[in-house]
Amino acid sequence: MTQVTVWNEFRHERHNDTVAEVYPEGIHTVIADALSEAGFETQTATLDEPDHGLTEAVLDDTDVLTWWGHAAHDEVQDEIVDRVCERVREGMGLLVLHSGHYSKPFTQLMGTSCSLKWREAAETERLWVVEPGHPIADGLDEYIELDNAEMYGERFDIPAPDTLVFTSWFEGGEVFRSGCCYQRGNGRIFYFRPGHETYPIYHDESIQQVLANSVAWAAPGDGPTPKFGNSEPIEVIDESDDRTVH
Amino acid sequence: MTQVTVWNEFRHERHNDTVAEVYPEGIHTVIADALSEAGFETQTATLDEPDHGLTEAVLDDTDVLTWWGHAAHDEVQDEIVDRVCERVREGMGLLVLHSGHYSKPFTQLMGTSCSLKWREAAETERLWVVEPGHPIADGLDEYIELDNAEMYGERFDIPAPDTLVFTSWFEGGEVFRSGCCYQRGNGRIFYFRPGHETYPIYHDESIQQVLANSVAWAAPGDGPTPKFGNSEPIEVIDESDDRTVH
Amino acid sequence: MTQVTVWNEFRHERHNDTVAEVYPEGIHTVIADALSEAGFETQTATLDEPDHGLTEAVLDDTDVLTWWGHAAHDEVQDEIVDRVCERVREGMGLLVLHSGHYSKPFTQLMGTSCSLKWREAAETERLWVVEPGHPIADGLDEYIELDNAEMYGERFDIPAPDTLVFTSWFEGGEVFRSGCCYQRGNGRIFYFRPGHETYPIYHDESIQQVLANSVAWAAPGDGPTPKFGNSEPIEVIDESDDRTVH
Amino acid sequence: MTQVTVWNEFRHERHNDTVAEVYPEGIHTVIADALSEAGFETQTATLDEPDHGLTEAVLDDTDVLTWWGHAAHDEVQDEIVDRVCERVREGMGLLVLHSGHYSKPFTQLMGTSCSLKWREAAETERLWVVEPGHPIADGLDEYIELDNAEMYGERFDIPAPDTLVFTSWFEGGEVFRSGCCYQRGNGRIFYFRPGHETYPIYHDESIQQVLANSVAWAAPGDGPTPKFGNSEPIEVIDESDDRTVH
Repeated sequence: MTQVTVWNEFRHERHNDTVAEVYPEGIHTVIADALSEAGFETQTATLDEPDHGLTEAVLDDTDVLTWWGHAAHDEVQDEIVDRVCERVREGMGLLVLHSGHYSKPFTQLMGTSCSLKWREAAETERLWVVEPGHPIADGLDEYIELDNAEMYGERFDIPAPDTLVFTSWFEGGEVFRSGCCYQRGNGRIFYFRPGHETYPIYHDESIQQVLANSVAWAAPGDGPTPKFGNSEPIEVIDESDDRTVH
Repeated sequence: MTQVTVWNEFRHERHNDTVAEVYPEGIHTVIADALSEAGFETQTATLDEPDHGLTEAVLDDTDVLTWWGHAAHDEVQDEIVDRVCERVREGMGLLVLHSGHYSKPFTQLMGTSCSLKWREAAETERLWVVEPGHPIADGLDEYIELDNAEMYGERFDIPAPDTLVFTSWFEGGEVFRSGCCYQRGNGRIFYFRPGHETYPIYHDESIQQVLANSVAWAAPGDGPTPKFGNSEPIEVIDESDDRTVH
Repeated sequence: MTQVTVWNEFRHERHNDTVAEVYPEGIHTVIADALSEAGFETQTATLDEPDHGLTEAVLDDTDVLTWWGHAAHDEVQDEIVDRVCERVREGMGLLVLHSGHYSKPFTQLMGTSCSLKWREAAETERLWVVEPGHPIADGLDEYIELDNAEMYGERFDIPAPDTLVFTSWFEGGEVFRSGCCYQRGNGRIFYFRPGHETYPIYHDESIQQVLANSVAWAAPGDGPTPKFGNSEPIEVIDESDDRTVH
Repeated sequence: MTQVTVWNEFRHERHNDTVAEVYPEGIHTVIADALSEAGFETQTATLDEPDHGLTEAVLDDTDVLTWWGHAAHDEVQDEIVDRVCERVREGMGLLVLHSGHYSKPFTQLMGTSCSLKWREAAETERLWVVEPGHPIADGLDEYIELDNAEMYGERFDIPAPDTLVFTSWFEGGEVFRSGCCYQRGNGRIFYFRPGHETYPIYHDESIQQVLANSVAWAAPGDGPTPKFGNSEPIEVIDESDDRTVH
């Protein structure tokens, strides 16, 4: 059974009343509950726990990690970030949510700034499925509509996704690549745009369906573990001119 | 006219006689000469110069940077690495050569380990053009053959390239994605595999053709500079339910 | 100098007054003039000419073919379609415009239905540059705005583009992948969405810039012509167990 | 449970003794048996059956179709080819095997010639896993080695695959992109190179593992069925300048 660790910065919910009303027990609790109901084994971890709740033991036991952060990206220790990225390369799935675009694990794994345009104006967002045959679109309609969303607009400074599943339309006139699949090392990464802390996005049924689909998609397989480094030839080769100097 | 800065670690050539015989004035000199003859404006920079020769002024004046490093990746200062990566995202082209796969700029821009298998056995490499319509393949035959090459073998732990131009065959039984194009930010990156310091690879005419082609391909264009951050709506929107809290 | 052949169905302009007012001498004339001014050698060809104006001689002399069709896709003879597709695979560039998404050459080269949603309601379209480092975005702002456009909406049933340059926002609530690059054989293909016959889209300066950029991008290179079929081994192989039966 | 239809030309096995020794009951029987054992519901269909065994009823009941053909591609009726391609666009998976690269369904879905180099010389092939995190690589070692294989060499005239899973090394000096994933419409396509009729390739355990993995990967999901054609606006739009003429 796929083990999911739901990570949350968990600051807004404790310090801001508007957010606390929408997510009284934290964004992570709502996400973890939705994923449990979808049949995954879930646990949560938050920034202010020791090791941010992401000890070696926890990560070794995690098939897919979901990441929500916003105001305290800088407080995530580099050692833990490296640990997360290393686990992704080994095969752990990573689901990066909304403002997690600026998180250290995501920007480190992408190699770009992951910058974008944004605006908080409670405007309509419509996520169009542009790749309906992708497993992450299972069970969805042609689009998901959110009445009140923060806007994220292009240019989104990411590497072109391996697969683009969703593209968002915003009332204010922008578009955004809002569902982006990546393979990095042996691990699969999905960036999913919606999820601002002041709107009840993670309570939405379609959004929960995408979360479940993307966890299933990102769960590690059983592919070969690459061997790196100095390597004996498989075939007989002519080494008569070998100038090896190291 | 495209301005190229040819960067070289420039250590092997000064400390190892075998290498010095092949590249008496350094790998950078051979590459810079080849690119000059191909019509580019070139300058060189090396590790042991102040700022590794890569001051802000030099990089501001560079359209395409080529990178050869091997034994001293760790000695490249992080500040300079950040400067290089920032310039790539702004549009500067980057040509990463051979053992540069493990360089800080390349691994930082890729977000993966960039590990691979390797072997020094003076074996035959044959670089097959798998995308003959790509500009980097201009003027080439169906393959480039190198009698004596270091082997690099898959799994090469990189993001799948945007375009794969070359795939190498090795006498010892391995294959390798040896010509890989990436877009990162506004900049183009080409990784090109051949170029071990003990073989006269950069004296080869076809290899020089690829270097020239890839510099031309990676030269920055004149596309829009993205604007990031808080952004006014273009269309009139209904903000009646705006829960903005920041 | 790059030779461009501008192909047009050229029926609407002759039979419909609204269209004739916008394009009195045909869409092809406006496109050809714009490309001439951008420095390309241009000629035109239309459906009702013999061979639709696309004789072997014309195509052999064409570096990039642009294609506008709408109401008479079926009247394009299969033999000419095959001739066009063959030339693309040999290296000729192909620029497919607007309703050309349903043309025989495009659907044959894509292998999909190329279906989409559409609506004629003179609504606003905003083409966002999502890949500002691509040569087709040279000289543009962050977006192109068209006050009156036909809507094309996702799902657009195409293979995921090799590079997605533009994504459109529409007033009515849809998005569209409106600038799509493909490599097919040795040839480059660019699909560009805007261009409805009743709106003066091809008179727009930014649209003309994109046409010029995409022609430059699609112009054939000088890569190797692949050799196909039975092939002698390059290396010595052990054929002792050869069970060849043909 | 995933329903697989294993299609085979089934001529060589009936007319050639060498082939009959390797596949006495036909290539399809060996493949179907392997897939049954892997837990799939299987049936077979062959060229010389009415409708080539691919009636509407059979295809409607097929989740994944596997295709092996070689000497009689031309005898496959265009109507059946269109039926197969249509089903792929609707979501049916398609697994194209070996010489099926020249089959009508594959070339129609790719839009390219799908030509390649070939040689029958019972030489060694080594299929390297270049994307170990892909589900099709599950349970494999770093490479699959085949002692006796027909050679297929680059340039393979296909669209660049969405994901490249395998790259082959051949004793005679060539390489080949031998495991290629595509999304076309709602359907997934996997091209898998090995499988010459005179070598017992489909009896190989690793090859059977890949067949099973790729069937599982290609099985249709439950994504939205796109709606195409004229479409009402979702948002209120200003139609005051509507020049609709159709």
